[in-house]
Amino acid sequence: MLLLRDLAQLATPSGTEAPLRGAALGEIEVVDRAFVLCDGETIAAVGRMSSLPALDDDVVEVDCRGLCAIPGLVDCHTHAAFGGDRVDEFSLRAGGASYEELHAAGGGILFTVRATRAAGGDGLREAVELHRSWMLREGTTTFEAKSGYGLDRDTELASLRAIRDAGGVPTWLGAHAVPPEFADADAYLDFALADVLPDAAELAEAADVFLERGAFDASQARRYLEACRDAGLALRLHADQFTESGAIPLAVELGARSVDHLEATGEEGIRTLAASDVTGVLLPASALFLDRPMPPGRTLVDAGAAVALATDFNPGSAFCESLPLVCSLAATQLHLSPAEALAACTVNAAHVLGRADDIGRLAPGYRADVTLLEAPDWRYLAYHLGGRVVARVVVGGELR
Amino acid sequence: MLLLRDLAQLATPSGTEAPLRGAALGEIEVVDRAFVLCDGETIAAVGRMSSLPALDDDVVEVDCRGLCAIPGLVDCHTHAAFGGDRVDEFSLRAGGASYEELHAAGGGILFTVRATRAAGGDGLREAVELHRSWMLREGTTTFEAKSGYGLDRDTELASLRAIRDAGGVPTWLGAHAVPPEFADADAYLDFALADVLPDAAELAEAADVFLERGAFDASQARRYLEACRDAGLALRLHADQFTESGAIPLAVELGARSVDHLEATGEEGIRTLAASDVTGVLLPASALFLDRPMPPGRTLVDAGAAVALATDFNPGSAFCESLPLVCSLAATQLHLSPAEALAACTVNAAHVLGRADDIGRLAPGYRADVTLLEAPDWRYLAYHLGGRVVARVVVGGELR
Repeated sequence: MLLLRDLAQLATPSGTEAPLRGAALGEIEVVDRAFVLCDGETIAAVGRMSSLPALDDDVVEVDCRGLCAIPGLVDCHTHAAFGGDRVDEFSLRAGGASYEELHAAGGGILFTVRATRAAGGDGLREAVELHRSWMLREGTTTFEAKSGYGLDRDTELASLRAIRDAGGVPTWLGAHAVPPEFADADAYLDFALADVLPDAAELAEAADVFLERGAFDASQARRYLEACRDAGLALRLHADQFTESGAIPLAVELGARSVDHLEATGEEGIRTLAASDVTGVLLPASALFLDRPMPPGRTLVDAGAAVALATDFNPGSAFCESLPLVCSLAATQLHLSPAEALAACTVNAAHVLGRADDIGRLAPGYRADVTLLEAPDWRYLAYHLGGRVVARVVVGGELR
Repeated sequence: MLLLRDLAQLATPSGTEAPLRGAALGEIEVVDRAFVLCDGETIAAVGRMSSLPALDDDVVEVDCRGLCAIPGLVDCHTHAAFGGDRVDEFSLRAGGASYEELHAAGGGILFTVRATRAAGGDGLREAVELHRSWMLREGTTTFEAKSGYGLDRDTELASLRAIRDAGGVPTWLGAHAVPPEFADADAYLDFALADVLPDAAELAEAADVFLERGAFDASQARRYLEACRDAGLALRLHADQFTESGAIPLAVELGARSVDHLEATGEEGIRTLAASDVTGVLLPASALFLDRPMPPGRTLVDAGAAVALATDFNPGSAFCESLPLVCSLAATQLHLSPAEALAACTVNAAHVLGRADDIGRLAPGYRADVTLLEAPDWRYLAYHLGGRVVARVVVGGELR
């Protein structure tokens, strides 16, 4: 057994419900001078030090004075399987070129497709492992990652295998962009659905589509998602990043798990989403990276929508694996409280991945995934902007 | 001697001029497969590995494969001497209260004044040491810090001593706010200039004033700065953070080293600054933290102004010690290139501190302060948003 003792604070979303919405999103339970007791991969007990039960001799005790415990963070939207980087493009954009201009000029996603195809299976495995190690440093104990930089059969499947082998939750983003060897989006989808989907459905848990001007339109997205649903995959959509393109009604109709981005979502989309079971995944690091408008986080929460937070980690539009930074952006840019931000990247992110019964809370029976913050108050997670706020993580009961 | 060998890249502002402005700001010299050789506290040589001279046996060699070297970062604007934190205020503001509203309601600076007075000399020394250790992790090898949370004689002088003892460059921010025991700003300045300035001038290198609605007006700032100049201190001003209050013309007239903030500076202020020898210090982490407009970074550079970048590290409006994050914000929000950002927090920041002959460049004769980046390309400094991009630092020839 592993005992995290003398924690300055323990903070966790309360209850057992998922996803949390409205006022419940901000209901965080805080215990001062606390402990977390792990039995193998599972949390056995949490509470005040003064109520610590008598323990056997074979308990490994960790002195956590000066640290706060929160549930291991859950990053439910990343593109961690890629080769190369886009630092040249980043430096050019700093001088004024827009993301869409760079994309149209042959940079953008297709630049990374070339580098990812060149990386091969071993290169992809190394890349995902590296990115996974970066995420762990920032307190992420569960990560989702999408394929979508292969766009050919071998590289898409190699991406999904690399994600699975690194312990990630794989999503097949078969409809990310149209690769150059196809005349148009429909011709590419003919190939992807016939030749890649059958094997991708064995490796992935969900399918995702980039519904956007210049990528896939609503009818193409519908065709792709319906085929994926029929193959047993959960559904997700890149929605309203630059333009409102009908993703929210489509997601609601198809019973998707999430619509992700929402920077361009207007009032009607907010109302539709709030009245649905679909979770809105907000990616403020991407909006910051591209200097684009932030998604309407406060408005979505106040309207009653279920929201999650994620990094969108990828080489082009969010080279950022830090959920603590995302929480700082949620507090300063989206006007969520630190409590709402914490719930959004634990319980609600776990819900998007279909794992809310297992992760996202510090309570008996949940998986022993704990993020330890170097802080006197757990809200430093959002308050300590850009600081090294994560001290250690516990993953499945193992201190890293 | 210390040899940093097999660096993936070395990047440094070129030439010897300071401050750099206009096109020269972006002229960074990049050497692939490089070395840095330190002799005691001084850089002896830098160059390509292929031109490494023959060396004695008593050289300590450090394998720097996978790392890039840049000059040790210089943070020329921090408020690192404070007690307590403002995480309650931060959490409230996330829910909608403005900085000025919180300030007017008795929170804000005066909340930290109470905590700082309570900390005492030992508490302040511990706090500055802790903050210094955070800065080192983020690659800052030289930091300025201001007093200004004491506002009584003992605490102001204790703040300056704590900064000096931690190796920082002390600035007396005697005119930060009017403490509650004084009826008005003039009465407080009577006290500060008569009772604190004589000793502060022995400890500090510069004086600073918060010229702003609700703090000190232009005539009070003039009185304070003229007295400080006469006591031998260099001059700096908190300028145009929320409103344009005449700081730039005053700074130019008095020959100040810098005007800091500039979020509210308009066209005339930009022209006046660009035509002067005063450096504009931009603090984008503060604008982000407060969700306020960003300073006009690109426009200032294009107009020919000398600009520096700094964190503004403080508990209320920028709990952020990370210059790499500031460089990411400079690239994404201020539209400076990574090269311009690097020069702005090395050479130009060193110039603001009167140290540009000694620090801010990797070249023979400069102090051996080096920041090592975990990156294949030095521009990851700005590109790797919120990442742990700083691997190690060398301070005065000593590897930390």
